[in-house]
Amino acid sequence: MQKPYPPVYYADYLQLDKLLSCQNPKSDEYGKHAHDEMLFIIVHQAYELWFKQIIHELSSALNLFSKEKTDEKDLGTAVARLRRITAIQKVLIEQLNIIETMTPLDFLDFRDYLIPASGFQSFQFRIVENMLGLSIDNRVKLDNKNYYSLVSDEHQKLLLDSQNNLSLHQAVDKWLSRIPFLDIGGYDFLLEYANAVTRMIGNERDIIINNPSLSDEKRNRQLDEFENTKKKFEALLDENKHNELVASGNRRFSYRSTLAALFINLYRDEPILHLPYRFLTYLVDVDENFTTWRYKHALMVQRMIGSKVGTGGSSGHHYLMQTAEKHKVFSDLLEIPTFLIPRSELPDLPDDLRSRLAFSYELK
Amino acid sequence: MQKPYPPVYYADYLQLDKLLSCQNPKSDEYGKHAHDEMLFIIVHQAYELWFKQIIHELSSALNLFSKEKTDEKDLGTAVARLRRITAIQKVLIEQLNIIETMTPLDFLDFRDYLIPASGFQSFQFRIVENMLGLSIDNRVKLDNKNYYSLVSDEHQKLLLDSQNNLSLHQAVDKWLSRIPFLDIGGYDFLLEYANAVTRMIGNERDIIINNPSLSDEKRNRQLDEFENTKKKFEALLDENKHNELVASGNRRFSYRSTLAALFINLYRDEPILHLPYRFLTYLVDVDENFTTWRYKHALMVQRMIGSKVGTGGSSGHHYLMQTAEKHKVFSDLLEIPTFLIPRSELPDLPDDLRSRLAFSYELK
Amino acid sequence: MQKPYPPVYYADYLQLDKLLSCQNPKSDEYGKHAHDEMLFIIVHQAYELWFKQIIHELSSALNLFSKEKTDEKDLGTAVARLRRITAIQKVLIEQLNIIETMTPLDFLDFRDYLIPASGFQSFQFRIVENMLGLSIDNRVKLDNKNYYSLVSDEHQKLLLDSQNNLSLHQAVDKWLSRIPFLDIGGYDFLLEYANAVTRMIGNERDIIINNPSLSDEKRNRQLDEFENTKKKFEALLDENKHNELVASGNRRFSYRSTLAALFINLYRDEPILHLPYRFLTYLVDVDENFTTWRYKHALMVQRMIGSKVGTGGSSGHHYLMQTAEKHKVFSDLLEIPTFLIPRSELPDLPDDLRSRLAFSYELK
Amino acid sequence: MQKPYPPVYYADYLQLDKLLSCQNPKSDEYGKHAHDEMLFIIVHQAYELWFKQIIHELSSALNLFSKEKTDEKDLGTAVARLRRITAIQKVLIEQLNIIETMTPLDFLDFRDYLIPASGFQSFQFRIVENMLGLSIDNRVKLDNKNYYSLVSDEHQKLLLDSQNNLSLHQAVDKWLSRIPFLDIGGYDFLLEYANAVTRMIGNERDIIINNPSLSDEKRNRQLDEFENTKKKFEALLDENKHNELVASGNRRFSYRSTLAALFINLYRDEPILHLPYRFLTYLVDVDENFTTWRYKHALMVQRMIGSKVGTGGSSGHHYLMQTAEKHKVFSDLLEIPTFLIPRSELPDLPDDLRSRLAFSYELK
Repeated sequence: MQKPYPPVYYADYLQLDKLLSCQNPKSDEYGKHAHDEMLFIIVHQAYELWFKQIIHELSSALNLFSKEKTDEKDLGTAVARLRRITAIQKVLIEQLNIIETMTPLDFLDFRDYLIPASGFQSFQFRIVENMLGLSIDNRVKLDNKNYYSLVSDEHQKLLLDSQNNLSLHQAVDKWLSRIPFLDIGGYDFLLEYANAVTRMIGNERDIIINNPSLSDEKRNRQLDEFENTKKKFEALLDENKHNELVASGNRRFSYRSTLAALFINLYRDEPILHLPYRFLTYLVDVDENFTTWRYKHALMVQRMIGSKVGTGGSSGHHYLMQTAEKHKVFSDLLEIPTFLIPRSELPDLPDDLRSRLAFSYELK
Repeated sequence: MQKPYPPVYYADYLQLDKLLSCQNPKSDEYGKHAHDEMLFIIVHQAYELWFKQIIHELSSALNLFSKEKTDEKDLGTAVARLRRITAIQKVLIEQLNIIETMTPLDFLDFRDYLIPASGFQSFQFRIVENMLGLSIDNRVKLDNKNYYSLVSDEHQKLLLDSQNNLSLHQAVDKWLSRIPFLDIGGYDFLLEYANAVTRMIGNERDIIINNPSLSDEKRNRQLDEFENTKKKFEALLDENKHNELVASGNRRFSYRSTLAALFINLYRDEPILHLPYRFLTYLVDVDENFTTWRYKHALMVQRMIGSKVGTGGSSGHHYLMQTAEKHKVFSDLLEIPTFLIPRSELPDLPDDLRSRLAFSYELK
Repeated sequence: MQKPYPPVYYADYLQLDKLLSCQNPKSDEYGKHAHDEMLFIIVHQAYELWFKQIIHELSSALNLFSKEKTDEKDLGTAVARLRRITAIQKVLIEQLNIIETMTPLDFLDFRDYLIPASGFQSFQFRIVENMLGLSIDNRVKLDNKNYYSLVSDEHQKLLLDSQNNLSLHQAVDKWLSRIPFLDIGGYDFLLEYANAVTRMIGNERDIIINNPSLSDEKRNRQLDEFENTKKKFEALLDENKHNELVASGNRRFSYRSTLAALFINLYRDEPILHLPYRFLTYLVDVDENFTTWRYKHALMVQRMIGSKVGTGGSSGHHYLMQTAEKHKVFSDLLEIPTFLIPRSELPDLPDDLRSRLAFSYELK
Repeated sequence: MQKPYPPVYYADYLQLDKLLSCQNPKSDEYGKHAHDEMLFIIVHQAYELWFKQIIHELSSALNLFSKEKTDEKDLGTAVARLRRITAIQKVLIEQLNIIETMTPLDFLDFRDYLIPASGFQSFQFRIVENMLGLSIDNRVKLDNKNYYSLVSDEHQKLLLDSQNNLSLHQAVDKWLSRIPFLDIGGYDFLLEYANAVTRMIGNERDIIINNPSLSDEKRNRQLDEFENTKKKFEALLDENKHNELVASGNRRFSYRSTLAALFINLYRDEPILHLPYRFLTYLVDVDENFTTWRYKHALMVQRMIGSKVGTGGSSGHHYLMQTAEKHKVFSDLLEIPTFLIPRSELPDLPDDLRSRLAFSYELK
């Protein structure tokens, strides 16, 4: 018979004694009590707790993807992990509104005591970025220094480890490259898609040229745009051109992974592609939410200190705005919509592939 | 060759001339301009626009479920429809914060001109409730009158039609009852589940009786609770008892549908059950969001008019609080968690069923 | 010359070593890793951090109000404290959405290890309730026991202390009772207001009686409602009746405080009443936000465990729903809107009082 | 005796017949029903309704400020108007989440029918920008064309009118310049502030030079930063330099208005400055919320169409990102925090000014 577990007390389980003794305002230490410093400490601690949780979720997701073959069950789990991260991110963003209740003057009451501590030193957040797969080339430098140069040796080691381990970006790239539907039993996705694109593009050109209501100026501008669009598609349809984009840092996924992501987006109505489509969507969500958080963080810093330098000695607002722009991981997926074509132009899947992609809840 | 579509102008497409001429404050008509009446009109119009959209989504979902056999593709579409409704509901709730910028005194500036108009007369919202499947027995009466007695004849007809048509509740009940996994190829879900429950419950009883750290008083209280739990499970395991609950209005789904919903919740990790599980979850979300909206609406009305009667002649706050409590459609699904058992106790599925519930993205 | 402060490192300042070592899942301790237990711990710790911050804000507000005479500067500070609490409350509510990403089955993976720990044992939250001034009579009992009976002796002492100290409700009551505008230089607010109410009520009665378009049935119903309204106003205008309501537990503020709150609400357009009006509004906001949080918490618990008993051995959903209904502190302020009258009926203030209530930014 | 107002029916009051007949999807007109076009229409109509409301609030605020002398009561009203706009803006932002439930493929189902209609043609939104006071120089050009060149003649006239009328920016500039506290009865704010800044800056320089723990490299970097800060303050303390910034488009407020805004921010704890401080804060809030909306709008467009050109023939994502950066009105106020100094360095106000800035609720 199973034994009962020993009884648990709420405050012990959560280690509240310890947790609630981690707040020691410097202003009190110096005998110059500043009411709002407590808020400053607690909001940052709440952020760090949530970063720990995000790391917990990402570790689990990475674990699922580091296998040779990813179970379909695992994909469902990975989606749940990412979904939770997005729920946490909403709280991260909402927490900025709490900080905004501290006015610039209230902040100045204790700001000088904190120099040169700074949010740039949050090693957990840097680990999150590394686990997602932020490329070192995309990282904004702070006063011309590497992101790991501002933290303690111990934390620097953690950062370098996380930088060297498998990232979610790498894991997803591998997983996408293994998806078998692109060329299966005589079906050639790339060929079918290329034909559809050629048809569609040709038609668009005809419409522009023959549209009687267009002035010459407008027609020419539309033809320019058309050429632009055409070139983008050509780059997608040609593996060499894709690899050039990779070499120049404009794409990160392999060619095959890019096509697989496109396939999933185009045929997402097929039941079996429902989960993969959600998965890719959540990757973009996670990226976008961090971008939004950085962006609103930058606005908040501007309202707090104007164009002063931050406590860490850098132009806080400017740095954060740059990271909002550049610290993106899954930007390849943001390019996919460019290459979608209307359902009415979409080539039908061959019957046997379609039936592989379907399943049935009801008895036949 | 396809012809170009005629060019469209933003303001014409959205019929802005017409749309923006629908706001005629009574206070202006009576020469007693009250600044906030415009807000009052516009916020209610925004609500009605969104109700129209919700009806559009529900019509589409109902259409998909009124077929003899629901396609798996359609289930994905139905999930998308419900998800959109939940996104709209968040705006409905957020809009209450706009109304709260109107203070009670501001409202009194024009309140008398509106009598007896009232939100109770929003026929679109009543149609939404009917399409979801709110049972007439659960409807809170307003001053002892039926919900359709306060609207015009024309709108009354619309309400009665929507009441008589297939509701989402009915459609889901039918769909759940058709799911084949409960008894397939010798597998008997009910039997397996009943055995697991009996085992688990017996174990729990042993633990209580043999726990040396319990005082007699605590042991007896725990045994009482245990008996309570046991009875709930017995009611679930016995079709007759379930039907009694249906007869007394405490359950609405058929016995088979209830078991199917339980099966989906217990085995939701199986890939093929991912979409059905999401679907059931969204049904509860939609219910809960309307509940939250009614609840916050009730709080807002209280802040606006205290315990005065509403413009429609009823105790607004009280009525809305009651609807928040009683106007629930999918309460059967809220009972499912009561009957979940830990994964460690969950009986394994037979191999052939498990393989029917699985699918594979990768080449074997 | 001032010396530079010693340099501070982010991780030391926030005591991250300590903070991030407070998470020890029981499921790991028992060798049965349950992924979601980490979330369960961290979300509760985040709640406790924020409760500490709310206590910090309330302590400061109480301190300002415990003086013999409240400075106007202090009122501005008190408003800032309350505003911050409402910003925190939005995060408390948003955090529920994170918990909802844990499914009932995920929770069952570790639930048994936690018995009988429970959120009821959050002594910090009970302290918040006491500091606000939740009356012991309004507290919902849990299994017939007092709220402080479930916590450790040490925490019990903290609870009883906070119960015996000055509460915000008491402090506000005293402050309101000191406001001098009700009878100043011959002006008698109660008399003026009573006259206006009598005029308004008489007019309403005439309208009902002489309205030719009313059926007898409707006229009688409207007259009933009218009598109801009349009685409410009579209770407000008679100090003895007010004191009866206090004695029976239906009101908590003194008569003079109630009139002062009404005065502030009626004449809030006067510049000098701007801050007092905001202050009263935030008191209601804080109350309402906790109500909403309890309510959504109750819904979440229902989705998680259905109608099972909670880990603390009580019917979690039911208890929480009751607290959402009854754990209100400033309900007297929620009655104020009942007694507001339209600006068009509002008696003018005498000139000298009006000029006392005004101030001017610009040169005369 | 007052007569009863004629009874009002909800659906007539809101003109629902008309309002709900303004949705005519092009895809239905062309016999190619696209389910999501209804959403596309309704969400844009909801936006336009709210734009109308924002215009209503701004008109009222502008009206209050166009008087020779702004009443203090009016300032309270203006704050209420701006607060409501911020509540509406939160809904505008939340509505983007509804659009995001439309996937790129769903959009492609009807996108071609709408060309060249585009949100750029929302004349109401342009009017909002003009009423706030967006300068024509800050407007991002669309394909090198003026913002009013894409709308109908009738709407163009509305835009030009709103561009020529008094803007909120102009009205606030005038109001700030009239505030008398900067030089009153011998008090000279600029002098006092300049002295405090000089003291503070000198002290900072000493600390850097004499800090023994700094390496030469760090000391030099800190001295560089110090010089930078010093220059910013010098520009603020010198009217000529300020006017140069105005001439070069880097500042918009007059020198006196800038100092008044600084004064309000520094001495906001004084009761009489409470409302002016809130007012300035809301101006920044309104600006920032529109910035956030444009930014999230840009992200949404990118997810919908990638880097395709928008229906209006422009690179939607890019244009919107630029407006998020440049379409700011009250950026002068965002510079104020740069010039705040800690309360401990803040010169005391002379007694008679302080007593002018105070008021008392309680009897002396």
